[in-house]
Amino acid sequence: MTTLADIRAAAERIRGHVHRTPILTSATFDRELGVRAFFKCENLQKVGAFKARGACNAVMALDAGSAARGVITHSSGNHAAALAWAAAARGIPAKVVMPDSAPKVKIEAVRGYGAEIRFCKVLERDAVCAAWQQQTGATMVHPFENPLVIAGQGTAALELIEDVGNLDAVIVPVGGGGLCGGTAVVVRSLLPNASMLGAEPLAVDDAARSMATGVRQPRVDNPKTWADCLLTGLGEPNFRLLRQHAVRVVTVDEQAMVDAALFCLQRMKIVVEPGSASVLAAIRSLGAEVRGKRIGLVLSGGNTDFAWLPR
Amino acid sequence: MTTLADIRAAAERIRGHVHRTPILTSATFDRELGVRAFFKCENLQKVGAFKARGACNAVMALDAGSAARGVITHSSGNHAAALAWAAAARGIPAKVVMPDSAPKVKIEAVRGYGAEIRFCKVLERDAVCAAWQQQTGATMVHPFENPLVIAGQGTAALELIEDVGNLDAVIVPVGGGGLCGGTAVVVRSLLPNASMLGAEPLAVDDAARSMATGVRQPRVDNPKTWADCLLTGLGEPNFRLLRQHAVRVVTVDEQAMVDAALFCLQRMKIVVEPGSASVLAAIRSLGAEVRGKRIGLVLSGGNTDFAWLPR
Repeated sequence: MTTLADIRAAAERIRGHVHRTPILTSATFDRELGVRAFFKCENLQKVGAFKARGACNAVMALDAGSAARGVITHSSGNHAAALAWAAAARGIPAKVVMPDSAPKVKIEAVRGYGAEIRFCKVLERDAVCAAWQQQTGATMVHPFENPLVIAGQGTAALELIEDVGNLDAVIVPVGGGGLCGGTAVVVRSLLPNASMLGAEPLAVDDAARSMATGVRQPRVDNPKTWADCLLTGLGEPNFRLLRQHAVRVVTVDEQAMVDAALFCLQRMKIVVEPGSASVLAAIRSLGAEVRGKRIGLVLSGGNTDFAWLPR
Repeated sequence: MTTLADIRAAAERIRGHVHRTPILTSATFDRELGVRAFFKCENLQKVGAFKARGACNAVMALDAGSAARGVITHSSGNHAAALAWAAAARGIPAKVVMPDSAPKVKIEAVRGYGAEIRFCKVLERDAVCAAWQQQTGATMVHPFENPLVIAGQGTAALELIEDVGNLDAVIVPVGGGGLCGGTAVVVRSLLPNASMLGAEPLAVDDAARSMATGVRQPRVDNPKTWADCLLTGLGEPNFRLLRQHAVRVVTVDEQAMVDAALFCLQRMKIVVEPGSASVLAAIRSLGAEVRGKRIGLVLSGGNTDFAWLPR
């Protein structure tokens, strides 16, 4: 299982490659909820998402021989772009299997970083990826179950706590659980009295149901949600991390999530994709429970085509 | 005329009230132009614009007696919100005269900070403001001709240079010229070899024509531009500052400006209002002249209703 030492090693490995992202505050948000909120802006990270951290850690940790054969993954978007970017940064080839339903803006990003792409149906992606991997000998870098990826994602929380000190709660979005798992390790190690929360859209609430039942639930098929970054089901090691560290998953409805993304755009002047804005919606839903608290929110990404924007 | 000492005094006065805004970089922008660009994010400033600096400096400098009678101004938006915010921060009343054509989002912001608003035609605003000022004894805080305002606006450039060190050029948008004048003082004092540039939309190019002819030109009436933050003509003391410090004004067309605002939104994940994005468009237009240079760009604001966004 991922430890704080793994995450500190990742932080050393990726330093200088990724941005140390800024932490913003919003007097309006604080006043609305009676909290002191610190927004860790991973939407301003390389490739527009925290995924740059995990992908970079996995790529930079490869030995020279493996690196020469390149890396491969499947991803609906942000991890694909992140791996393509990290591979380009090291000068090695990247191969990406993407669902044919992936947002155009994310496909273009992956292409822009020079990766080779194959498209397939969502349910075929494991098989397509495995076959391509066998042909090429590239190293598979799973978007959220890879331990180096999980450790890399945890580095955002390290920086957050270094920069703002003690927090009463930390919240991140939950999709595959790489960010949530890595963050939970950091929070439990450095802030033993803090609440560790995950935010999940109701339309893809497999993590909430997994935690409630104690049994990992399958991903929701064909959900109707703007949270395209959170469509994957919770990974197996991720589920164990979330259980080990007693993560509380808070679900949010679509309208609350879109309202939160609009708040980021109109009031905070930053682009946050709807799935990432779920963390604001989740904190809003907690009401009196969070009043007076210092809360860290990881804004995990900003890759969106704005189709959710009211017109 | 405004001096570096005035701007350093302003920086002391407003510290703790305004954000020390982050400086972002964009590998994509750097690669496109062969530059090293540093974006000073005043769109992430209090009230969503650098105007918080100048308004705060003017309000915090008032003696107790004047402060009690409050402040008054006329403004198409960002300065109005900034003065309303600064007055609220000091707990004194604010009165604002706004053109009836001001964007709804800016009117709402002013109201949200608790100011009293009167609407009028653009050309009547001096008279309406003067009459209201006489009735109330409030201190007039002109949006760009007030020396305390000009000094406050210069503090963004102080922080930029403190954070990134030497620069070959600094560019800011030019409207009334408060930001441009204050920045020019800082750049000429601290970076004697740097170019000091102003960016101005072609549709409202009075500053460019004023600098070219040596005679201050009147504002353009009813221009067709998305740069609603730059509709005012260049102020009188501002024109003298721009001349004294040999500011070079670079004009940009509407499409280049909107493309630059889109680049900020899609690639940098930040909301920059079109007039503010004119600085990216201006640097792009300089081509080979800027290659290899370290450039500071002040992104002056992020208050927009997105009406310019292609749908």
